[in-house]
Amino acid sequence: MKILVINGPNINLLGTREPEIYGTLTLDKINEEIKKLGNELGVEIITFQSNIEGEIVNAIQKAKSPDWNCDGIVVNPAAYTHTSVAIRDAISAVAIPTVEIHISNIHAREEFRKNSLTAPVCIGQICGFGLDSYKLGLRGLVNYLQL
Amino acid sequence: MKILVINGPNINLLGTREPEIYGTLTLDKINEEIKKLGNELGVEIITFQSNIEGEIVNAIQKAKSPDWNCDGIVVNPAAYTHTSVAIRDAISAVAIPTVEIHISNIHAREEFRKNSLTAPVCIGQICGFGLDSYKLGLRGLVNYLQL
Amino acid sequence: MKILVINGPNINLLGTREPEIYGTLTLDKINEEIKKLGNELGVEIITFQSNIEGEIVNAIQKAKSPDWNCDGIVVNPAAYTHTSVAIRDAISAVAIPTVEIHISNIHAREEFRKNSLTAPVCIGQICGFGLDSYKLGLRGLVNYLQL
Amino acid sequence: MKILVINGPNINLLGTREPEIYGTLTLDKINEEIKKLGNELGVEIITFQSNIEGEIVNAIQKAKSPDWNCDGIVVNPAAYTHTSVAIRDAISAVAIPTVEIHISNIHAREEFRKNSLTAPVCIGQICGFGLDSYKLGLRGLVNYLQL
Amino acid sequence: MKILVINGPNINLLGTREPEIYGTLTLDKINEEIKKLGNELGVEIITFQSNIEGEIVNAIQKAKSPDWNCDGIVVNPAAYTHTSVAIRDAISAVAIPTVEIHISNIHAREEFRKNSLTAPVCIGQICGFGLDSYKLGLRGLVNYLQL
Amino acid sequence: MKILVINGPNINLLGTREPEIYGTLTLDKINEEIKKLGNELGVEIITFQSNIEGEIVNAIQKAKSPDWNCDGIVVNPAAYTHTSVAIRDAISAVAIPTVEIHISNIHAREEFRKNSLTAPVCIGQICGFGLDSYKLGLRGLVNYLQL
Amino acid sequence: MKILVINGPNINLLGTREPEIYGTLTLDKINEEIKKLGNELGVEIITFQSNIEGEIVNAIQKAKSPDWNCDGIVVNPAAYTHTSVAIRDAISAVAIPTVEIHISNIHAREEFRKNSLTAPVCIGQICGFGLDSYKLGLRGLVNYLQL
Amino acid sequence: MKILVINGPNINLLGTREPEIYGTLTLDKINEEIKKLGNELGVEIITFQSNIEGEIVNAIQKAKSPDWNCDGIVVNPAAYTHTSVAIRDAISAVAIPTVEIHISNIHAREEFRKNSLTAPVCIGQICGFGLDSYKLGLRGLVNYLQL
Amino acid sequence: MKILVINGPNINLLGTREPEIYGTLTLDKINEEIKKLGNELGVEIITFQSNIEGEIVNAIQKAKSPDWNCDGIVVNPAAYTHTSVAIRDAISAVAIPTVEIHISNIHAREEFRKNSLTAPVCIGQICGFGLDSYKLGLRGLVNYLQL
Amino acid sequence: MKILVINGPNINLLGTREPEIYGTLTLDKINEEIKKLGNELGVEIITFQSNIEGEIVNAIQKAKSPDWNCDGIVVNPAAYTHTSVAIRDAISAVAIPTVEIHISNIHAREEFRKNSLTAPVCIGQICGFGLDSYKLGLRGLVNYLQL
Amino acid sequence: MKILVINGPNINLLGTREPEIYGTLTLDKINEEIKKLGNELGVEIITFQSNIEGEIVNAIQKAKSPDWNCDGIVVNPAAYTHTSVAIRDAISAVAIPTVEIHISNIHAREEFRKNSLTAPVCIGQICGFGLDSYKLGLRGLVNYLQL
Amino acid sequence: MKILVINGPNINLLGTREPEIYGTLTLDKINEEIKKLGNELGVEIITFQSNIEGEIVNAIQKAKSPDWNCDGIVVNPAAYTHTSVAIRDAISAVAIPTVEIHISNIHAREEFRKNSLTAPVCIGQICGFGLDSYKLGLRGLVNYLQL
Repeated sequence: MKILVINGPNINLLGTREPEIYGTLTLDKINEEIKKLGNELGVEIITFQSNIEGEIVNAIQKAKSPDWNCDGIVVNPAAYTHTSVAIRDAISAVAIPTVEIHISNIHAREEFRKNSLTAPVCIGQICGFGLDSYKLGLRGLVNYLQL
Repeated sequence: MKILVINGPNINLLGTREPEIYGTLTLDKINEEIKKLGNELGVEIITFQSNIEGEIVNAIQKAKSPDWNCDGIVVNPAAYTHTSVAIRDAISAVAIPTVEIHISNIHAREEFRKNSLTAPVCIGQICGFGLDSYKLGLRGLVNYLQL
Repeated sequence: MKILVINGPNINLLGTREPEIYGTLTLDKINEEIKKLGNELGVEIITFQSNIEGEIVNAIQKAKSPDWNCDGIVVNPAAYTHTSVAIRDAISAVAIPTVEIHISNIHAREEFRKNSLTAPVCIGQICGFGLDSYKLGLRGLVNYLQL
Repeated sequence: MKILVINGPNINLLGTREPEIYGTLTLDKINEEIKKLGNELGVEIITFQSNIEGEIVNAIQKAKSPDWNCDGIVVNPAAYTHTSVAIRDAISAVAIPTVEIHISNIHAREEFRKNSLTAPVCIGQICGFGLDSYKLGLRGLVNYLQL
Repeated sequence: MKILVINGPNINLLGTREPEIYGTLTLDKINEEIKKLGNELGVEIITFQSNIEGEIVNAIQKAKSPDWNCDGIVVNPAAYTHTSVAIRDAISAVAIPTVEIHISNIHAREEFRKNSLTAPVCIGQICGFGLDSYKLGLRGLVNYLQL
Repeated sequence: MKILVINGPNINLLGTREPEIYGTLTLDKINEEIKKLGNELGVEIITFQSNIEGEIVNAIQKAKSPDWNCDGIVVNPAAYTHTSVAIRDAISAVAIPTVEIHISNIHAREEFRKNSLTAPVCIGQICGFGLDSYKLGLRGLVNYLQL
Repeated sequence: MKILVINGPNINLLGTREPEIYGTLTLDKINEEIKKLGNELGVEIITFQSNIEGEIVNAIQKAKSPDWNCDGIVVNPAAYTHTSVAIRDAISAVAIPTVEIHISNIHAREEFRKNSLTAPVCIGQICGFGLDSYKLGLRGLVNYLQL
Repeated sequence: MKILVINGPNINLLGTREPEIYGTLTLDKINEEIKKLGNELGVEIITFQSNIEGEIVNAIQKAKSPDWNCDGIVVNPAAYTHTSVAIRDAISAVAIPTVEIHISNIHAREEFRKNSLTAPVCIGQICGFGLDSYKLGLRGLVNYLQL
Repeated sequence: MKILVINGPNINLLGTREPEIYGTLTLDKINEEIKKLGNELGVEIITFQSNIEGEIVNAIQKAKSPDWNCDGIVVNPAAYTHTSVAIRDAISAVAIPTVEIHISNIHAREEFRKNSLTAPVCIGQICGFGLDSYKLGLRGLVNYLQL
Repeated sequence: MKILVINGPNINLLGTREPEIYGTLTLDKINEEIKKLGNELGVEIITFQSNIEGEIVNAIQKAKSPDWNCDGIVVNPAAYTHTSVAIRDAISAVAIPTVEIHISNIHAREEFRKNSLTAPVCIGQICGFGLDSYKLGLRGLVNYLQL
Repeated sequence: MKILVINGPNINLLGTREPEIYGTLTLDKINEEIKKLGNELGVEIITFQSNIEGEIVNAIQKAKSPDWNCDGIVVNPAAYTHTSVAIRDAISAVAIPTVEIHISNIHAREEFRKNSLTAPVCIGQICGFGLDSYKLGLRGLVNYLQL
Repeated sequence: MKILVINGPNINLLGTREPEIYGTLTLDKINEEIKKLGNELGVEIITFQSNIEGEIVNAIQKAKSPDWNCDGIVVNPAAYTHTSVAIRDAISAVAIPTVEIHISNIHAREEFRKNSLTAPVCIGQICGFGLDSYKLGLRGLVNYLQL
């Protein structure tokens, strides 16, 4: 089983960014931890990050292609959650089971962060658990794929 | 560590209800599985279900009292997610870390199910994983409490 | 054939309440008249009233259970028409044909009374005919069940 | 007692139109059945159908005139329910007791079909019972007129 | 003269709850103080608290009945202020002069707390004075009844 | 100079209709009075009334044609004021100076009567003066044409 | 008969202001013309202009007082039309028949100019006729007062 | 193959109307050109124009009847695009493939012209190409019917 | 202790104005009664009324200055409640504890009277008690200042 | 004559994507067919596709530059139709006649797909004809350029 | 060159007011600094402050008159930014180039402070730079006038 | 001191683009002028332009990195002002003082250009001064950094 873990814009800054919201967690740490859990669950992890909306679309398309050939996607679309019809269409087009996750509780922040354009085409959404959001998302996805 | 797992209105009907959305899962099965996982994680589980908004408020208050004295709450407010300021106020008043979960992906259903009055006062929200939503919620909550 | 007739909050006050809108009709009179018509149509009538949203949910669930085992429901959700996702979910979960009725013409009152959360999961809605709303609702339901 | 039964646009197509919503019922059948019930209740029935908003206004005005001299109106304004201030004004101007009916449950269809411009000036509204909506409407109207 | 003082959901938690908003005031203290003032003004006070919307409806109805036979009501509907058509209908149905009060200034909190469904059927509304909101409400009500 | 005076739906009922709003004025009286004033001002008056939106469009188009060849239009679109893009387009297409009038004060009635689709393509709007609205409209139009 | 003619903010600039909308008309010219027409109709005219909302409120109150003792008011509230509850309350408080007029067609300008806070408490509204709006307004008011 | 081409209100005025938007094109020219193209593509063309909403409904119904028996419809609903549920219902009821066209680019005009009530029940919509909108619409429809 | 009591626009008309809402109470009576109560509570009262928004701003600023040096403000902003950001900013700038009061129940009147721009920067709001609103407001303010 | 044909995000996936909406058409097929028609009409076709919003902006700018020097653009902005002010500004800045096309009928899908940010700066829009949308768009554009 | 610098309501309180937003800057300091910069740029500065909306309208009108005869205006409308159509109309009427400035960043405060009624009729808007907002505004205006 | 000046989409087209709004200014000219002013103020200027949202995010992140190590940012996000949560998050994440500028007065253009997603996380916003917007922005930023 192969899972693509996508991180959206500014997640590469993590650890320097608004620590009162996200703590000192870094993207490297996220990738390391998610791979460790992948190992434990017996699934291969590919990681990807970009600040460019269209490159995230490209990555989702590549997940479907023979190159990557993934069984599932864990995506933190970050800022694009609220504005990207293109990422929504990509997820819906490749028809690979996808889980949307957020580090912070998007319901407890600005009003415009409550609406997700991408969640309606995902299996489900997890938010608010910090690093654990990724790990819970991976567990949930793997269980879903094993049904 | 002691965790209260609350289920809101109509969850007691589960297994008979709209199977194309929820499958054949029953409330007894949920409670059994969550207790099994509680056992595994070394936490005691108290389960509660009611169709009455105010009784859920009562249960949340009781979680704080010497009677139950819980460390955390996993709540599926079901229909009250979208209409209950009272449950929101109760969660916020007892100040016990709480995780909101939903069996189905609320973002992929009717428009009015997207908005949660209770999520802003929780740690986070998990939706769309069926029975697994409860288990992921419990894991996330326990990790949070152990930080 | 067995039909449950549910009355929501404040209907028990009828006869004392805002007579310029509802007249002098009482709940006892409603129950008596609907039973008389039930008799005439050859259907058994169970009547239920509560001011508590969750108890109405309970009653709808009980309609499905071996206890009551009803073929149809006539419901006047009163104030809960406009605020209760829980009653909507209960009707939709038990999957018993249900008719929503209102004593007064809800379209001719305050703006917030025009929207019904429950009507979309019912067979149909009748409003504005006073006591006759119940009787027309029962007739419509019985005809529907006999198709 | 004399009752005018008005059908709005496209009801003349019934039986060919979206059968998953309306079934195979035709306008001739509706008129025949409503006259049969009229006979039974001892009231004379005049039937009218038009696709033209203003002709429906004309018919409502004629109901008041010596020509037709009706005691009540049963109206299915169909598509004009949601857009016609003119029909609303006509009903309100002639001051003849009027019942609005709909074949399908307008609350379970597109959002824009939930709002009725005409219902606030009627006695009440009945929707969702197919042919029976007309018959329940006629019964309700006759009872109302006999009070 | 007899006055019913109703407290809505979570007011029983007062003293433990969000002290930066409500301070250390408890429900017992409120009831004691309001009775003391009742004594001073020569009116009998009945106190009631519930977390259940429908039980508050019941209490309002009971205020009208021979059991309690109250002359006025002071109500703090708390969370139900913003969501309960049922309590609004109950106040309007019993037609007992009612004063709505709030401990905190509802205009200085979340947007959804500004709208009151119940205030339009009350004599008036008082908010923001802590314990004093109850006492001012009682004074205002008693003066109103003595006019 | 030739002026077309158009009256929209239900104005032909005037005198029988909601007398507390419009009084006992009839359409014949309006036409007679406006012609009398026309005479006084030295302009020829053509009068037209229809309950059918499209016939009002036809009349506006005819005002432009050699048949009628009018210099200006006084129009009371009545109910179509608020719903007819077609009448708006007709006025704008014929490019004949047009004055919109209303018998009652549309700002003091239902919310939906405040918005006029037709007024933006007219010279101006007059409302609230009863029969006098027509006469003031004619005066205003004639003065405008004489500039 | 005595009529107060009030002009709101910036009308004193007329003749210099946005000539493509208002032409070269000045406030002096307006006052002169309205007095000439007043003379003709046998009514005394008092004129008043202010850029200050509260002074317009003062003038309306003075219209009621023994000082001015007016029978009617013609008001062009200009910019305050859309923002002044205070002027609305003043008109409604003095209960003197008032006509609202506008020089330009407010329906053909910015969206926010379509709504009038003051019109609902006036007899009627006239807009779009330039100087003639005042004269038509005066005629309409005098006729109204003579009924 | 037989195609009905319907033109809505005010299209008969074309050539005289707002030339800065529509140019000097006339309805006769449109009908002549569309017939010429019909000839070329081997399809028979029936043309119809009316200013009356209900007559357009009638024409759509007739397209289905043995009288006309059309295979497809090209419709320019003009002003009724934005207000007619009746035309939408007619298109949906006859279930004949229909193409909606507009002469001007409706997205570049007033806000209210952007929304089409009829487009959701058509194959597609073409706007902005002047006379060519009809010809592109006919080509698209014929290709669609030949699939 | 010194308290400034401010009355906004049209309150000076009280007693003549819409008696079905405000009764026969006059501003002189209000000032007299509030001073009597001030006397009783041992606080000095300064009274101020203006119809001009900016003069109310001036008065609030003066309350802070050595001239008046007030400890608290009771303000009935009347019509400016709903439109004045300037009064809001003044209250917030002087940082003197302020109580907002209304004679009538603003929640039971027009929709636009429900929203208060000033209440969020006050201690609290009291409405609906007539003259008593001022007296309750003064009591509440004095108690607040004595905490 | 030279025409640039731009395809937006996820169009490169076509043929694998939601076949119940788009069928089995591929991007290669689209490009081949549009070039064949270009050949037929005597115009040179340049094709471009990107998933990145800014690269589409770049391509539109390049269309204006000596490199490409295009006479017109056919653009299917796909997901960016509803979110990209940048593409709108680019089209408006280069001032090259542009036609917007969509494969599916955007009016018959999710509500948010109805609004186009780009259409107001195009000649026109065509949607719903599958591959034919491109061909009709090219024809329409070429005719427009030849006027 | 002569520039009028207008300050709106409560700016005269500056230095005492909400120091966490505005710091300790006073109006005298602002006027002194802006005059110093005016001196440097070779322009004469007139300063004006009022809490009264209509007096600001008067000042803007006076800027145009022979009295003051200004070439440009720098205005901080403060609270009136969001509510004054009268100031907007005055700026637009005098047609003197005007720059709107704000001390604080209005986009980072309450929602209602984001919308400016006056900015659309100004050259531009500057906000967020404290005292420097005035100086940047003056520079920008002087450069604009020298073009 | 080092300042990054970022220009968003289509600014590279300046000079060819909608000259009635922006004049003949080019991006090269802007960069040259801002560097000249930078020189004068003793600050180093780095310039950057991209049409790609994510590359602007990258540039903002780079400003924080040792590579560029900037003290402040002047950004004209152009079209992305209104749609980019990603740029907002980047500015907020790097926590470098940023000034938002616009060449044209965004308040005097289309409605959707009034709202800025980025301004709330900047020091302030300047718009409407053409090339001078950049220079005023740089001055404002440098002064801010020197406080």
